[in-house]
Amino acid sequence: MKNKIIKASIIIIGNEILSGRTQDTNTSTLARWLNSIGVKISEVRIIPDVEEVIIETVNLLRKKNDYIFTTGGIGPTHDDITACSVSKAFSKKYQIHKGAYKILEDYYKPGEFNEGRQKMVWMPENAELILNPTSGAPGFSVENVFCLPGVPSILKSMLGGLKTKIVGGKPILSHTISLRTVESEIAHSLTQVQNINKDVEIGSYPFFQAGKLGVSIVIRSECQKKIDKCNTQILDFVNEKKIEIVDR
Amino acid sequence: MKNKIIKASIIIIGNEILSGRTQDTNTSTLARWLNSIGVKISEVRIIPDVEEVIIETVNLLRKKNDYIFTTGGIGPTHDDITACSVSKAFSKKYQIHKGAYKILEDYYKPGEFNEGRQKMVWMPENAELILNPTSGAPGFSVENVFCLPGVPSILKSMLGGLKTKIVGGKPILSHTISLRTVESEIAHSLTQVQNINKDVEIGSYPFFQAGKLGVSIVIRSECQKKIDKCNTQILDFVNEKKIEIVDR
Repeated sequence: MKNKIIKASIIIIGNEILSGRTQDTNTSTLARWLNSIGVKISEVRIIPDVEEVIIETVNLLRKKNDYIFTTGGIGPTHDDITACSVSKAFSKKYQIHKGAYKILEDYYKPGEFNEGRQKMVWMPENAELILNPTSGAPGFSVENVFCLPGVPSILKSMLGGLKTKIVGGKPILSHTISLRTVESEIAHSLTQVQNINKDVEIGSYPFFQAGKLGVSIVIRSECQKKIDKCNTQILDFVNEKKIEIVDR
Repeated sequence: MKNKIIKASIIIIGNEILSGRTQDTNTSTLARWLNSIGVKISEVRIIPDVEEVIIETVNLLRKKNDYIFTTGGIGPTHDDITACSVSKAFSKKYQIHKGAYKILEDYYKPGEFNEGRQKMVWMPENAELILNPTSGAPGFSVENVFCLPGVPSILKSMLGGLKTKIVGGKPILSHTISLRTVESEIAHSLTQVQNINKDVEIGSYPFFQAGKLGVSIVIRSECQKKIDKCNTQILDFVNEKKIEIVDR
């Protein structure tokens, strides 16, 4: 298991992201966390609150990946259709989850566990709960599909409880070298380093900082030795070209 | 044309987004702009810097949409493979674009138009240029596929020049009502409004502001009258329930 690459896809469900009204930050949160536990993101899809699209996307991606994470659409309102859609994707009954019901019954004051809130305990049959330390209502998983809420602070608070459920590979390590230069100055040398280190991912990202241009080179691999080797080769041409290294 | 829904998809190309290192903001920028000119985003895909994935995604989505926008991967370094991949997607030659060459030759000081920068003028045969008022190097389009850079400030500066090339439908209008309540309090009434206004998109989004919970209801349609009708119906139950309306 440790040498296999573990892959995941993220499905961001929500018209508010597609309209530009809301800036998605869950992709970045999930991606950093998954990378840190050795899970590589193969792709992310942002899709509308449309049942057929959710079903189709979940069914396509769950077969191509070790894990799927969905965000959004598990609240109490009419546009929250993730749980029902995922039930249909797995051809499972959409029904009251007794464990979730008990959690919310205890969470709310007497009389507050109203019809709207009760919608949040409807889940696919035999779903496993993902506990929510922030606002009570749990997420859930079915096989390799993990359904999380869209509100970023709540999603973040639920990752701790997910850790034991996700088996990653080797953590993906990275090293960044930031330079006071422009990409075109280093493009040729960097290509040479990439060509002799084909199994290492080398990215080049321009930045503007305090009015000055720079480039961050990011080296990523599961193997620290391979990163160190690339780093040495990059520093060789950086020194030769007398390019300044900057903190960033 | 004015009554047809014009659809677009966005393809965000870049390992740095999938690793969580960089927070994508281009989706939101493009989505807001496209909505304002009557183009609806059907989906967004974030994919790695992998040629086959770019080719497959471009070819799939360009057939399902009126427009495709890609961001990222058109710079001078080895990981910038969008132009070459899009050439292959269209089975077109990947070659020097004379117009782009002239632009960059004029843009840079003598001697500065080096090998790395010259990579940025390689494009699919017969590509149309998208001018870049910020940093010279143009984007390009082939048929309905528009390729833009990944750096957000540069991308933004290029939208003005794109406007004449994109024919939208009716602009998608929206109206937001922000309430001092929680979703479960309004879920039932909001469902009723949605059910009698099926062709209007009504979204419900919880927020936290100054330590207090609230919900923004967003009504979206191409028709102002339909928005007004929903708005009235929502205000009716809001008043009846004595829920406070807040500025946001």
